[in-house]
Amino acid sequence: MFLFDDRGDPMAYEQYWKKMDDKCKVVITGSQLMSYLSDPRKVCWFLEAELEEAIKKLHRVVGNAVVDGRHIVVGTGSTQLYQAALYALTTPGGPQPISVVCAAPYYSQYEQETDYLRSGLYKWAGDAYAFDKEEPYIEVVTSPNNPDGSIRKAVVNSTSNEGKHIYDLAYYWPQYTAITAAADYDIMSFTFSKSTGHAGSRIGWSIVKDEEIARKMTNFIEYSSIGVSKDSQHRAATIMGVIYNSYQDIKSDSTENFFEFGHRLMAERWSRLREVVAMNGFFSLPKFPREFCLFNGDYTESYPAFAWLKINGDIEDCEKFLKENKILSRGGKRFGSDPRFARVSMLSREDVFENFLNRLLTIKGIRNGH
Amino acid sequence: MFLFDDRGDPMAYEQYWKKMDDKCKVVITGSQLMSYLSDPRKVCWFLEAELEEAIKKLHRVVGNAVVDGRHIVVGTGSTQLYQAALYALTTPGGPQPISVVCAAPYYSQYEQETDYLRSGLYKWAGDAYAFDKEEPYIEVVTSPNNPDGSIRKAVVNSTSNEGKHIYDLAYYWPQYTAITAAADYDIMSFTFSKSTGHAGSRIGWSIVKDEEIARKMTNFIEYSSIGVSKDSQHRAATIMGVIYNSYQDIKSDSTENFFEFGHRLMAERWSRLREVVAMNGFFSLPKFPREFCLFNGDYTESYPAFAWLKINGDIEDCEKFLKENKILSRGGKRFGSDPRFARVSMLSREDVFENFLNRLLTIKGIRNGH
Repeated sequence: MFLFDDRGDPMAYEQYWKKMDDKCKVVITGSQLMSYLSDPRKVCWFLEAELEEAIKKLHRVVGNAVVDGRHIVVGTGSTQLYQAALYALTTPGGPQPISVVCAAPYYSQYEQETDYLRSGLYKWAGDAYAFDKEEPYIEVVTSPNNPDGSIRKAVVNSTSNEGKHIYDLAYYWPQYTAITAAADYDIMSFTFSKSTGHAGSRIGWSIVKDEEIARKMTNFIEYSSIGVSKDSQHRAATIMGVIYNSYQDIKSDSTENFFEFGHRLMAERWSRLREVVAMNGFFSLPKFPREFCLFNGDYTESYPAFAWLKINGDIEDCEKFLKENKILSRGGKRFGSDPRFARVSMLSREDVFENFLNRLLTIKGIRNGH
Repeated sequence: MFLFDDRGDPMAYEQYWKKMDDKCKVVITGSQLMSYLSDPRKVCWFLEAELEEAIKKLHRVVGNAVVDGRHIVVGTGSTQLYQAALYALTTPGGPQPISVVCAAPYYSQYEQETDYLRSGLYKWAGDAYAFDKEEPYIEVVTSPNNPDGSIRKAVVNSTSNEGKHIYDLAYYWPQYTAITAAADYDIMSFTFSKSTGHAGSRIGWSIVKDEEIARKMTNFIEYSSIGVSKDSQHRAATIMGVIYNSYQDIKSDSTENFFEFGHRLMAERWSRLREVVAMNGFFSLPKFPREFCLFNGDYTESYPAFAWLKINGDIEDCEKFLKENKILSRGGKRFGSDPRFARVSMLSREDVFENFLNRLLTIKGIRNGH
């Protein structure tokens, strides 16, 4: 049986939320949350007030993004918001589709999400480092980066000054990396899937400076799906509320807080992975600097949600090699990078993660046996 | 204050679900429904098994669609499924975008949902009656029709035999019209919003004959939003379950069943509207034949979710005229039709509906006063 690690299903956090089952319980009766509308006076008219408030409170507690005076747009995951941002930045459309770039290695799904409808508004143009046209463009900046966990800034060196930016900050949370400043970009996207692990709810949000951009993103989500599940908005607000309340309540020390749990879990998993990788010698892993985390009040390494494995020696296709050893991964080519790399999820359930480590160890066994 | 009737928010059913609040209650704990996945072996891998089962049981009870041996694809409302169907029917794309048509008057949002991304795969081509090109096309058939409640069949008269069809059956439920047969088309879409009134949950589903089309629709929803809220899927399954169980339980006569309630409510509202319209003499309304409903076991008229008002006499813009009388509607032009028509929701909350009737009566007062 293959490990289903390909999508990065964030099941690692399930064990934490099991302990919080009752505290995070939501109850929805037959007649609640029936309307399309949340607040017709708001730019994002389908955003529930309680979710907006919870998002803002959570960012204020964590300190990872500026929210005051900003518009919040809710989406069916950050996937829908990425497309909403492309739409907002390209309408009314010019004579040709605008190039969308991202520094390689980049998230494997950006290309598909940009091009699947063959839009006349925008088109995928690949690696931002290779982009040198003097024309309007959109650069997606993913930080920490998926797949390799690196901290990113915009890289296109254009004199045309016609670049616009979308910041995908899905992994800018204290369990993955040091919170070094409150991010303050024009469009910043986050997701419930990666912050708390509730991928099944499909809730993402963008923090947007400009009202007109927020309005266009809202229009996109209206045309795409007439809003976003109210049931999941309510659930996300409840769970975020439990998290930020845990940081208000000084006396509460019976249960570990979520981000402490997440940070400890990720640090342990990375330590175990680095140990196995060092033992078998087939692979190398990125190294991350220690940075001071304003949230934890201490220095920390990055512990990304994915391991960006590089195969050493003569083997040229890391994904294929892993597959031969019954480990499912996404190969480097899909990230605009070298096939000697492959991405493996660090967020799987404990038994799956352990299985992954054991299979990595088995590879060592095979090599020794030959 | 204007009546916010423009979108057709189905709040009329709230009074029914209030009585069922407890019976329809869903409880979701902190660790439930966290994964992206529902069943990786299924074509639609993010469809919860309980929702698939509930959808099939509900259609079997109502008798409005064939579900046995069909694939179910869940979407974030039927809006997302409409776009998924366009994508599924046009990939791999030919040298030019395929024309999408619908008989006028057609649902006002189809044009925008088809064209907002300027897709190279498909483009809106307007009224199906006017389409006479000998080339591939997609015809959307909405039955009962939005805005005018008529029962529809495909109308394009093409000898090229290259037409494909999407059936939007959002209103093919017993509260709106007679169920005369179990529909059995290639792609049929339904929505939780119009069947039970739970618009806030954004749950729609398509019943699809061909596995490859179902797979492509699933791919679209993956690229668009990586699936559909599990919380809302669970809630929709629960509420559908309460409905079909009510039809199994012969002894249960304490509470009216949902479709009986809906049918009675819509019949009453249409009767009151026809009375007011007859009294003031400004407007006319469509007439519907009486048909035998296999579900109710009796003859019934249609009681559509929207009233398609036509203004009589010299006034040329019905929407403008209504707006002057503080009634918000969507004018005929937006439905590819005559501006002497306008669409008004029949599904608003009771106080809003009563307000609408009173304002219609006031118009009569003004005319008499001149």
